[in-house]
Amino acid sequence: MHDVAIIGVGMVPFGKYPEKSIADLGWPAVKQALDDAGIAGRDVDAAFCGSALSGMMPGQRILGQMGLSGLPITNVENACSSSSSALRNAILSIRAGACETALVIGVEKLTKFGGGTLPLEHEDFEVQQGMVMPALYAMRAKRYMHDFGLTARQLAMVSVKNRANGVKNPDAQMRSPVTEEQVLDSRMIADPFTLLQCCPSGDGSAALVLANASTARRYRSDPVWVAASDLSSGRYTEGFRDMTTPEITVRGATHAYEESGIGPDEIDLAEVHDAFTVAELLYYEAFGFCPRGEAGAFLESGATSIGGKVPVNPSGGLLAKGHPIGATGAAQVVEVVRQLRGQCGDRQVEGARVGLAHATGGGISGFDHGACSIHIFKR
Amino acid sequence: MHDVAIIGVGMVPFGKYPEKSIADLGWPAVKQALDDAGIAGRDVDAAFCGSALSGMMPGQRILGQMGLSGLPITNVENACSSSSSALRNAILSIRAGACETALVIGVEKLTKFGGGTLPLEHEDFEVQQGMVMPALYAMRAKRYMHDFGLTARQLAMVSVKNRANGVKNPDAQMRSPVTEEQVLDSRMIADPFTLLQCCPSGDGSAALVLANASTARRYRSDPVWVAASDLSSGRYTEGFRDMTTPEITVRGATHAYEESGIGPDEIDLAEVHDAFTVAELLYYEAFGFCPRGEAGAFLESGATSIGGKVPVNPSGGLLAKGHPIGATGAAQVVEVVRQLRGQCGDRQVEGARVGLAHATGGGISGFDHGACSIHIFKR
Repeated sequence: MHDVAIIGVGMVPFGKYPEKSIADLGWPAVKQALDDAGIAGRDVDAAFCGSALSGMMPGQRILGQMGLSGLPITNVENACSSSSSALRNAILSIRAGACETALVIGVEKLTKFGGGTLPLEHEDFEVQQGMVMPALYAMRAKRYMHDFGLTARQLAMVSVKNRANGVKNPDAQMRSPVTEEQVLDSRMIADPFTLLQCCPSGDGSAALVLANASTARRYRSDPVWVAASDLSSGRYTEGFRDMTTPEITVRGATHAYEESGIGPDEIDLAEVHDAFTVAELLYYEAFGFCPRGEAGAFLESGATSIGGKVPVNPSGGLLAKGHPIGATGAAQVVEVVRQLRGQCGDRQVEGARVGLAHATGGGISGFDHGACSIHIFKR
Repeated sequence: MHDVAIIGVGMVPFGKYPEKSIADLGWPAVKQALDDAGIAGRDVDAAFCGSALSGMMPGQRILGQMGLSGLPITNVENACSSSSSALRNAILSIRAGACETALVIGVEKLTKFGGGTLPLEHEDFEVQQGMVMPALYAMRAKRYMHDFGLTARQLAMVSVKNRANGVKNPDAQMRSPVTEEQVLDSRMIADPFTLLQCCPSGDGSAALVLANASTARRYRSDPVWVAASDLSSGRYTEGFRDMTTPEITVRGATHAYEESGIGPDEIDLAEVHDAFTVAELLYYEAFGFCPRGEAGAFLESGATSIGGKVPVNPSGGLLAKGHPIGATGAAQVVEVVRQLRGQCGDRQVEGARVGLAHATGGGISGFDHGACSIHIFKR
């Protein structure tokens, strides 16, 4: 399909901006995306703002700060998939003919919570029992190590790779390289995860300008096309029997490959949801980049490094670029679009024509339900 | 257009349910809507959940409680327009061909805040200066009284009418009638509003099942069709010069009438956003039910009572049915659909063929930006 394209992208470097309001945090990304598309704000027909923890109407607050009023604004929440879900709804809105152009915003300010564990729902009885995100992923890591012989050193290599990519990304929160030793020697968070195997907490925003086909071609000669847009809910973990199959991502990947007619071998780069080191490895397998149980060896072979068979998280991923929850999905797409346009300098994936973005989150309220949004783009 | 229809509706009686989780509050409305449509939960293709203050992933929590997993779930926030914005996105999703059936949920639990003013954003400098909702609407009421000679007694009559309607609605939070004297003698909140001129705080949920045309006709002989679905952002008040023109609603009404080809004279009943008594009067004028400045006399004539020219808030409206923020938009549609089907017993608007639902909210962060969602339905 060539019916919807991304014609503009922008983001603020992820980091800590405790003094900024949501509006101040968001509008520079929007301005950058509008400028990148060469479109005036008043010519955008609709906006979709993804955020998990910004309170009421972040989209109105951001666009109000820019003097943009009147257009339909939908605020979307889906935990870590918030702005990728906003993107999907923007795509559907264009396909429905309700708008010709749409703005997608992702924004989050985690510093307002003062650090530590995110505010979670009182009714979440998993969390009441200690099943916060680092603990959940740690159990998955332990299980995978047990089942497939993954080593602590291989886990650490995910951080080493992604931090090395982040060094080359001016929008990344963590811009210094780390060694395997530094990763393994950093403070223990939830065995086997040391601090440097957990994504940092921070603030940020990202924005995308979308257009239907004829409008996209009017604005630029190199639109990046949406080849698949999938949103699924489902089990965030598979449960007690097998914690290492991310069922919701496996299912979403199947949908996205079907919708696009593109297979895993054709993906030139992927931005996946590496909130913790093991997650990236599980997603190699979920997306079919390598067979089950072989993710550690696949990483070690260099296949997922820039220059490898399928570079994963060339932006630095959540581990280095950062993870302001609601901003992450849109920021992944910023990277994919820049890669497909060949704008990524030192971290460019040469000849990239097809890219994938994957944001997933959840684990709420004892039913381990979550959301997973997968987009495939092509130039 | 006859492309999208409502085939099932349900809601829980609005009230105070401090002991219930969001999941427990939401699923009975969903079950009722599914049963009303005669559709199994597993046959619903997508879900859109509107809530303003439920935290992350209320849709997943509710559907998870019912054992429904896998479908795409989008959580939508737009303050008081949350579930009506969810409805609009569900309609667009069907029009885009992404689904044949969709579930819309509205849910909110305000008792979790312990009463009093809602939690608002720290960065909202209107609120910092005391511009909470009762104060904002009180200023609008004072201005309207000054400009057009509206009397305190006429204001009170809005509550008297809507509470009388609420007596006949088993889903209403306030089911006792009130007299003008009782309204005027109740405790002062923000001059001219006494307590009984402010909508109550409470909890609740409502749900709708939508389908495309062919699916709708398969499930029932009396689908209610979406004739217009508009979402606008804009100025929640007009600002300092004229506080009595709800600009965003005026604009949205124009869009909705254009989209549907239906004019104000053809509306058989309307559910409008009467969070405070004066609001209903301003909306009579915004929707063109009566000329500017004549809302008080129009009300007094009985035109907006059941049996009048255009019954407004036959459900009891926000003043009597209640206003659990995110649930309100969907609950308005529940009433409109039941009215168009002739299922409303004592409060039935005889021969109703066209109904309108209007949810608006905002006033966030000093720019008085908000959302307004207007839907017109016909049988």
